[in-house]
Amino acid sequence: MTLDLAGWAALVPSPDASATAAARARQDTLTKPSGALGRLESVSLWLAGVQGRCPTIQPSRVRVVVFAADHGMALAGVSAYPAEVTGQMLANMREGGAAVNVLARQCGATIRLVSLCDEYPRTGRIDREDAMTAETAEAALRLGAEIADEEVDGGADLLIPGDMGIGNTTPATALIGLLTGAEPAQIVGRGTGIDDVTYARKQGAIIAAAGRASGLANDPVRLLAAVGGPDLAATAGFLLQAAVRRTPVVLDGIVSGAAALFAACIAPSAKAWWIAGHVSAEPAHGEALRHLGLNPLLDLGLRLGEGTGALLALPLIQAASATLNEMATFSSAGVSGRA
Amino acid sequence: MTLDLAGWAALVPSPDASATAAARARQDTLTKPSGALGRLESVSLWLAGVQGRCPTIQPSRVRVVVFAADHGMALAGVSAYPAEVTGQMLANMREGGAAVNVLARQCGATIRLVSLCDEYPRTGRIDREDAMTAETAEAALRLGAEIADEEVDGGADLLIPGDMGIGNTTPATALIGLLTGAEPAQIVGRGTGIDDVTYARKQGAIIAAAGRASGLANDPVRLLAAVGGPDLAATAGFLLQAAVRRTPVVLDGIVSGAAALFAACIAPSAKAWWIAGHVSAEPAHGEALRHLGLNPLLDLGLRLGEGTGALLALPLIQAASATLNEMATFSSAGVSGRA
Repeated sequence: MTLDLAGWAALVPSPDASATAAARARQDTLTKPSGALGRLESVSLWLAGVQGRCPTIQPSRVRVVVFAADHGMALAGVSAYPAEVTGQMLANMREGGAAVNVLARQCGATIRLVSLCDEYPRTGRIDREDAMTAETAEAALRLGAEIADEEVDGGADLLIPGDMGIGNTTPATALIGLLTGAEPAQIVGRGTGIDDVTYARKQGAIIAAAGRASGLANDPVRLLAAVGGPDLAATAGFLLQAAVRRTPVVLDGIVSGAAALFAACIAPSAKAWWIAGHVSAEPAHGEALRHLGLNPLLDLGLRLGEGTGALLALPLIQAASATLNEMATFSSAGVSGRA
Repeated sequence: MTLDLAGWAALVPSPDASATAAARARQDTLTKPSGALGRLESVSLWLAGVQGRCPTIQPSRVRVVVFAADHGMALAGVSAYPAEVTGQMLANMREGGAAVNVLARQCGATIRLVSLCDEYPRTGRIDREDAMTAETAEAALRLGAEIADEEVDGGADLLIPGDMGIGNTTPATALIGLLTGAEPAQIVGRGTGIDDVTYARKQGAIIAAAGRASGLANDPVRLLAAVGGPDLAATAGFLLQAAVRRTPVVLDGIVSGAAALFAACIAPSAKAWWIAGHVSAEPAHGEALRHLGLNPLLDLGLRLGEGTGALLALPLIQAASATLNEMATFSSAGVSGRA
């Protein structure tokens, strides 16, 4: 059965405006000049809205879901690493040795690895052929949604999409270019750290992919099938369903950014449930966030993916919650107000 | 006895270059593209250097020292809050209700409150008269150094300078202007959130203070006496002595930034021991950091002080340490290197 995208989008609720208003009012009673906690205050308002309560609950059941896939572009010389690294890094993640494992341990988050490598064959080279069929794109969108449901039903109170897949910045950049209208020359990045020759090859591939898909802007599933991948599709489904399930999401890098941009094309209101953990060194990621109207919390020149940048932002979100909830008020502390 | 500033400066050691080099080499063996953790990698190198070891030890005995003082400028209508708020906020900090308390609890740091309000009288209005005598400035520099010694001897493995004092952004801005040559019009900020009339008054006061002190650039203690305060002096002494004691420091906002700029004039090599936690909404703070050559970790529009911005950056430093220490290497995880 064809996926009913409009019906899915209609299920996305709005955050709770009264909880947001209560957080705004509470912020102005706390023992600090109004607005002095800067971005932390706006994050606390967002958290109140998506949790539907003020005081907020500090997110403590944080789940990272890493979607991994084999990309045909990895065989086309657009990455600094060989294609087999995808599977090797998944094994490393299972053993707890990757950056995402270390950072999740630091903040008490847990990780679920979703390898799409077996279920879905390596994608097509998007400069020459579609990445996958429309049926595969739909199936992966559904799978991502099911995983979001499972995680929310399992008690997760905040979700983070992660990624692993050599070559995955090529489809992500192509998708962002097509959805934002940005010129490839302006947004193609160095991925894992490619040299000039590889960069030229990557840029050429993205231009070719964009050319092949240029007529598909109004057919999201076919667009995703043409230049995306099952990981991008599953992440998009995961992000959409997280919004349906009223669960906050911290976005990570270019792959989750591309998936978010795609998901927001289907359901613009979903982005109210997401916050941008960081902006990466990939130019396309910044472009995607600007189009989404999401202001990243961190800018640390990261270009690793996996969910790492989102995990680094998590303590800021927890701090936003704690300050809103725990600071004394001017009246409770007996502090004079403005002169 | 007059303080021997040159002798003090000569005691500042350099971080351990061999530990930094070991961290650089180790980063390149970890299962990620070289440089993919961006700023986190450079922070790990800094931490290795200041700790003199690789692997590093994750800072876990973090101490915030809040220096509070009564500023004469608070009576001159340059703040949105009345002067008595300084003492009221100190009481709030003792009760655990201020933002600095909440954020310290979040990351397991402890706080020491150092009120200079009793030992040192309210400072002079720096637009008309010196803030304090040169003797007071020296005594406060020494006090800050003694406190750093006490904290390091007590086991602190990372220090954070905090501040509390209505009116304190006025002397901090004046000091930064004099030490950087920046025009007051370019660097005066809104402090606690002042209106246009108050802002004009604050700017006029800083111009007057800078005029009074313009001949003192080569006499640091007299400069500090003219436009500073005992809190700025104690913080500068604290920062210098932390460097002497080979103890890393995370700088906070405009007040610790002004003190750091002053301390770096006495001992330029001391800044190798400091990292900038954030850049605040106060323009003078960014100017001070640029002059120090310190690149802030966070930019969240904070303007609260107390040590809050430094505490928010602490998880990033801990994450830098953890990724350096705990990630698998390409060889240990059996991951292929670059193609």
